[in-house]
Amino acid sequence: MKLDISRLQRTIDQINGIETTQEEGVNRLALTDGDMKARRLFKEICSSIGLKIWEDEIGNIWARKEGLDPTLPAVLCGSHLDTVPNGGRYDGLLGVMTAVEVLQLIQERELEHDHPIEVVVFSIEESSRFNLSTVGSKALTGELNPSSLKNCIDQQGKSLYDVLLKKGYFPDEVEKIKIDPSQYKAFVEMHIEQGPVLYRESIDIGVVEAIAAPIRFQLNLLGEEAHSGACPMKMRKDALTAAAEIILEIEKKGIEESVHQTVTTTGICRVFPGAMNVVPGEVDLYVDIRGIDIMSMMRAVTDIVQKVEEICKKRQVQQIVKIISQEKPVLLNKRMMEAVKENCRRLGLSHKQMASGAGHDAMNIAKILPTALIFVPCVDGISHNKKERVEARDIENGLSLLYETILTLAQKDEDLNLEKEADV
Amino acid sequence: MKLDISRLQRTIDQINGIETTQEEGVNRLALTDGDMKARRLFKEICSSIGLKIWEDEIGNIWARKEGLDPTLPAVLCGSHLDTVPNGGRYDGLLGVMTAVEVLQLIQERELEHDHPIEVVVFSIEESSRFNLSTVGSKALTGELNPSSLKNCIDQQGKSLYDVLLKKGYFPDEVEKIKIDPSQYKAFVEMHIEQGPVLYRESIDIGVVEAIAAPIRFQLNLLGEEAHSGACPMKMRKDALTAAAEIILEIEKKGIEESVHQTVTTTGICRVFPGAMNVVPGEVDLYVDIRGIDIMSMMRAVTDIVQKVEEICKKRQVQQIVKIISQEKPVLLNKRMMEAVKENCRRLGLSHKQMASGAGHDAMNIAKILPTALIFVPCVDGISHNKKERVEARDIENGLSLLYETILTLAQKDEDLNLEKEADV
Repeated sequence: MKLDISRLQRTIDQINGIETTQEEGVNRLALTDGDMKARRLFKEICSSIGLKIWEDEIGNIWARKEGLDPTLPAVLCGSHLDTVPNGGRYDGLLGVMTAVEVLQLIQERELEHDHPIEVVVFSIEESSRFNLSTVGSKALTGELNPSSLKNCIDQQGKSLYDVLLKKGYFPDEVEKIKIDPSQYKAFVEMHIEQGPVLYRESIDIGVVEAIAAPIRFQLNLLGEEAHSGACPMKMRKDALTAAAEIILEIEKKGIEESVHQTVTTTGICRVFPGAMNVVPGEVDLYVDIRGIDIMSMMRAVTDIVQKVEEICKKRQVQQIVKIISQEKPVLLNKRMMEAVKENCRRLGLSHKQMASGAGHDAMNIAKILPTALIFVPCVDGISHNKKERVEARDIENGLSLLYETILTLAQKDEDLNLEKEADV
Repeated sequence: MKLDISRLQRTIDQINGIETTQEEGVNRLALTDGDMKARRLFKEICSSIGLKIWEDEIGNIWARKEGLDPTLPAVLCGSHLDTVPNGGRYDGLLGVMTAVEVLQLIQERELEHDHPIEVVVFSIEESSRFNLSTVGSKALTGELNPSSLKNCIDQQGKSLYDVLLKKGYFPDEVEKIKIDPSQYKAFVEMHIEQGPVLYRESIDIGVVEAIAAPIRFQLNLLGEEAHSGACPMKMRKDALTAAAEIILEIEKKGIEESVHQTVTTTGICRVFPGAMNVVPGEVDLYVDIRGIDIMSMMRAVTDIVQKVEEICKKRQVQQIVKIISQEKPVLLNKRMMEAVKENCRRLGLSHKQMASGAGHDAMNIAKILPTALIFVPCVDGISHNKKERVEARDIENGLSLLYETILTLAQKDEDLNLEKEADV
């Protein structure tokens, strides 16, 4: 069965018509005008197809299609509408609009389903504005309170708490929106991979088994500034050549731990004073280690820190290591994964069980509901960028898979036997 | 013979009293208020001891003490008064004020000398303001014209040409000040080493044999931005890990060529986009290679460029190498070196024949006059920094050596047999 994606592509284009230019990409930073306009348009679209719509205290938008038995727990699916600055056309939006399209197809085809089905737009998924990611879904699991919203400040100095108030939401009531797990059967999020694996390996679908968590640390290296002409090589305490050795050790460790899906990245390297004729006296490195295997991640961190000590000792450079964050990976529900894979097989879609290196709302919801995260390939793995693209056949595959998966989940089916707790 | 340095220290302190704070260091950026006040004070000091004073069209200040035979060519000595922002108390100033102290001692002791003796303060030695160094001495060798002064722009957008006009100088006449070599017998500059060699090796005096020239190039590395969590290690084109390998090769080459006094430095490393969760897509490195042996420098450049190609090919990163400058080292006059060394021996000063890694006015004057450059140690080699220090005994040694050397040069002495051209 091939599904027509022309209407889905139109609604995607419609929302991307807001605050988007060819030069800059998509600008729907959380709770800015672009985001607010997109929310309004999303609600209009859902309303026009007869869904029941409401917003919660932190701005998550909900759209519900009733089932044959309204007392049954709902099947939930969705993603987010907000973007990074100059972002892409599919990150978040694809999952949201595909879910709406699925509901519209079920409606048109007058298909019966036992469980109600709800689409959710999670509020403030990207961390770009308030330095906190997946805010809406964190609130749904009870992780946030008014004071944590007051502590998130944007570049203009406005707190998330104040911005929510100004936009008509109720940050003081954020704790009330915690989901009652008995009200929901399962959650499914479809998202672009934001990495190159599926695209390069020509695989249709990624079935996510775990969402990686980052361990992040800052490394301050203190050598000695010297004149680039006047200081002989053997008398130098060059902070940048020490940093270079460390960067290569960090990469080497990532390659060694690849077999456990751990990756290591030095994303920031700042050099002081940073002048052509001065041997660098100080370097700051920021290191990000991600994985789904805690033992492998910890091994990488320990080995890197030991190497840093050896290199700095040898080069007479002082080092300060500062852990910035240390999160745990989230494993997804195995029965949900099996349900998704079964639908892939039925649709003839090639698929791969994989980790998600990036964080998603699904990682929060997985703590309270049986959760699946489905990836579709994006061209060359490019995301958070105006060049982000998804091929039409991958949109079609994603739509078909989400359609089948939601229909499966929305039937009363004791065999699926989902557990409320993640099956770890 | 021990010379008393208390007066010299007072005049140094007096000039350093201008635009200097404990927090920031010395601020006599070329042609700013601090520099202009220091020039005025210098002229007052010279005037008070009866020297004849004049300024030339580009602001070099000249102070002359007549010899027994005023028709003989003069012996020239001097350095500069201007500093880098937040600079040190001795860079340039020590050479200028020691030369004045020598003239004052000769005057007080009523010592006879055949040749006239002149002290010169070179204008605009530091490149910090106008991105061109040793302007005053370049003008004296005929290297500059009004349009080259118009092309030097400071951070406020003012050209060197306009600033000179505003301060009462005559940039249109800059070509007129070219020195007639028949009017000068020799030039001696005393300067702090600005490197750690003499201080760490406990040597009193550096007798400079050559002034290193930099070859500088920019290296642009273009990899591929990717999500730090979503992109597996083996699919990355990380511009920073490529840069790290290159930085270590550059260092390795410098160590290999150390025997020829060549040094290699990566002073600037800029990483884009420079975010914690993004594999770096682009890196700019700026490399400075200095030496006094052209073959060794060229070998270093060629080998580095070849390594860059290998590393980039292996890592699928694109590279652009852009040569920024390529200057030739300047060899100093051997008979002048011998005269300085002979005076060291007479005074019981330990000394070392060495290269100057940094540029100095002496490198320009050496093209037209027999020139000597004398280094005194500075503590830990620290310079261009408010922590720059020179120990009292090293000031004393420098004063004694300059005193003896100027007296030697100022006597009619056919044996010295200086040649006008650098003895290369």
